[in-house]
Amino acid sequence: MFGDKSIMSEKGNCIGYAARDPSGVLSHYEFSRRDLGTDDVSIRITHCGVCYADVIWTRNKHGDSKYPLVPGHEIAGIVKEVGSNVKRFKVGDHVGVGTYVNSCRDCEYCNDGLEVQCVKGSVFTFNGVDADGTITKGGYSSHIVVHDRYCYKIPDNYPLASAAPLLCAGITVYAPMMRHKMNQPGKSLGVIGLGGLGHMAVKFGKAFGLNVTVFSTSITKKEEALSQLGADKFVVSSDQEQMKALVKSLDFIVDTASGDHPFDPYMALLKTGGIFVLVGFPSEVKFSPASLNLGMKTISGSITGGTKDTQEMIDFCAAHGIHPMIEVIPIQYANEAIDRLTKRDVKYRFVIDIENSLK
Amino acid sequence: MFGDKSIMSEKGNCIGYAARDPSGVLSHYEFSRRDLGTDDVSIRITHCGVCYADVIWTRNKHGDSKYPLVPGHEIAGIVKEVGSNVKRFKVGDHVGVGTYVNSCRDCEYCNDGLEVQCVKGSVFTFNGVDADGTITKGGYSSHIVVHDRYCYKIPDNYPLASAAPLLCAGITVYAPMMRHKMNQPGKSLGVIGLGGLGHMAVKFGKAFGLNVTVFSTSITKKEEALSQLGADKFVVSSDQEQMKALVKSLDFIVDTASGDHPFDPYMALLKTGGIFVLVGFPSEVKFSPASLNLGMKTISGSITGGTKDTQEMIDFCAAHGIHPMIEVIPIQYANEAIDRLTKRDVKYRFVIDIENSLK
Repeated sequence: MFGDKSIMSEKGNCIGYAARDPSGVLSHYEFSRRDLGTDDVSIRITHCGVCYADVIWTRNKHGDSKYPLVPGHEIAGIVKEVGSNVKRFKVGDHVGVGTYVNSCRDCEYCNDGLEVQCVKGSVFTFNGVDADGTITKGGYSSHIVVHDRYCYKIPDNYPLASAAPLLCAGITVYAPMMRHKMNQPGKSLGVIGLGGLGHMAVKFGKAFGLNVTVFSTSITKKEEALSQLGADKFVVSSDQEQMKALVKSLDFIVDTASGDHPFDPYMALLKTGGIFVLVGFPSEVKFSPASLNLGMKTISGSITGGTKDTQEMIDFCAAHGIHPMIEVIPIQYANEAIDRLTKRDVKYRFVIDIENSLK
Repeated sequence: MFGDKSIMSEKGNCIGYAARDPSGVLSHYEFSRRDLGTDDVSIRITHCGVCYADVIWTRNKHGDSKYPLVPGHEIAGIVKEVGSNVKRFKVGDHVGVGTYVNSCRDCEYCNDGLEVQCVKGSVFTFNGVDADGTITKGGYSSHIVVHDRYCYKIPDNYPLASAAPLLCAGITVYAPMMRHKMNQPGKSLGVIGLGGLGHMAVKFGKAFGLNVTVFSTSITKKEEALSQLGADKFVVSSDQEQMKALVKSLDFIVDTASGDHPFDPYMALLKTGGIFVLVGFPSEVKFSPASLNLGMKTISGSITGGTKDTQEMIDFCAAHGIHPMIEVIPIQYANEAIDRLTKRDVKYRFVIDIENSLK
């Protein structure tokens, strides 16, 4: 069940699950985390969300995977040690780590709390090259050592399992929604795609007081979208009649679909001056200039968010009782979970119970 | 020279030049303008700019041309009569009329001075269906009768010939530049395409205190762009080296190119959070989602502007001595001018001297 241990000679202070090659198959792996630095927080990981990024890099979809590769960038856990300079955290605190664990901390974006846009590039939580030249390893592991700037406080009353998906799925939709002022009660929001990101967009939309319409390719998600997520309307995107009835009716759209789809039909649903935010990565974005120009519409893109927005988002979720819908799994189920994720067979985020299953 | 007058039986209170069929050939034409209403201004037209829209509709490119068609929506002239309710204008005032001459005057956009986005549709200055069912006729004519709301005051010290191109080319770039806060001194602007719109974007950019880089397919415009328009830099867009040197260097781009071109190379030139405004109508807009998402960039579209912005833009041009570069022509040259415009052979706007040539 733990893969072929005989091929592994690694030993270290941390255990985890790693992919060894582009098959992406994850198996038990031992390695060493760095010693605690004066600005570091050492975290006993309790939970880690399963993000599509884990599929991309365990399977070397971008051709830049560095094996053995320990995925996972939706990390929640408990502080077990802090460096001498660390003031924001103490042993026992609940904390999160998201998609990046380092940046230059000196450029205009870092200074603005927007480290993900660091001019020298932020260091990805796994498969990244850290400042010391080591390759970062992610949250499918027993502990992690991170500079305190890239750790977030998770309120004690907020479940750690729920917190994990906030660190990528949550912030990825929250950041652009706030940037484009989608938190205006009474306005209307369309959410394209109902997966890990989309279902959080619906939840944020409702918390912001928006009228939320979900667009999905499949009718199967309708009841859940309306009754459990609280969406106001559900539209199967292939239904021309329903789409036509919504022309010029939406103030905002958040597009979380990763698959290819046309853009013109959705842009037609925006009101004059409407804003379309793309957070997915289809193979291309293509539309008619008239779709953009005639109603002075806007398309804007985004990836995750800075540390400032991330902490704000976590606090917002705790204050408003916003919890992602998750399926908690043991780490031994990780390979099957990743397979299911590629088939979009999850409602709506797998979260690995590291604490109770990784031994 | 005036076309075959023998085929025309029309008589009326106004003379102009009209296209009779999709050949687009313009010839002398007589028709009647409506009687002056209580809210109307009657304008003796002195000048009319030649816009690409004139090509589109005289030649029925959109399949909706209604012949005989009198083009022209960059109109400047002198008030010759005003209705009894009109307070803003008096006989002798210099005035302009732009791309629309009517709207519902009752919707949220009209109420906000954004009549071009009227929910019932604004009435185009030519080839439009007016509230009374008549087909509007444009500025290639001796006079026009327009509701005073759609007339703009042109300061007495601002030449009427210069004012004409402001009413479409000028406002088309000014409105989105203001909407996206491009008037921040010290920021950097790229202008794609150096025609009627592009050269005005350069002039506005310099007046706003921006560092302006012009992107053109042709080196022939370089000297003029730098020395006469005051651009800071000129880049031939096919020059990979020059393009590469500008990666992540621009805060804003205004794309005025009507021809097809790739978008990814230009989006790469935007800084993080940069804004790309499209005002041209290529056959499609296509780019990689990474071009948009990774630097949280924005693409926004626009067409002309509302009455509020238009008056503000005219006043800004007068206050800052901003004049379009124009080639003044007699109306008898209109057919040749339109041919040259299709070949982009104009620096940078033809303006018809209606006053001295239309008899």
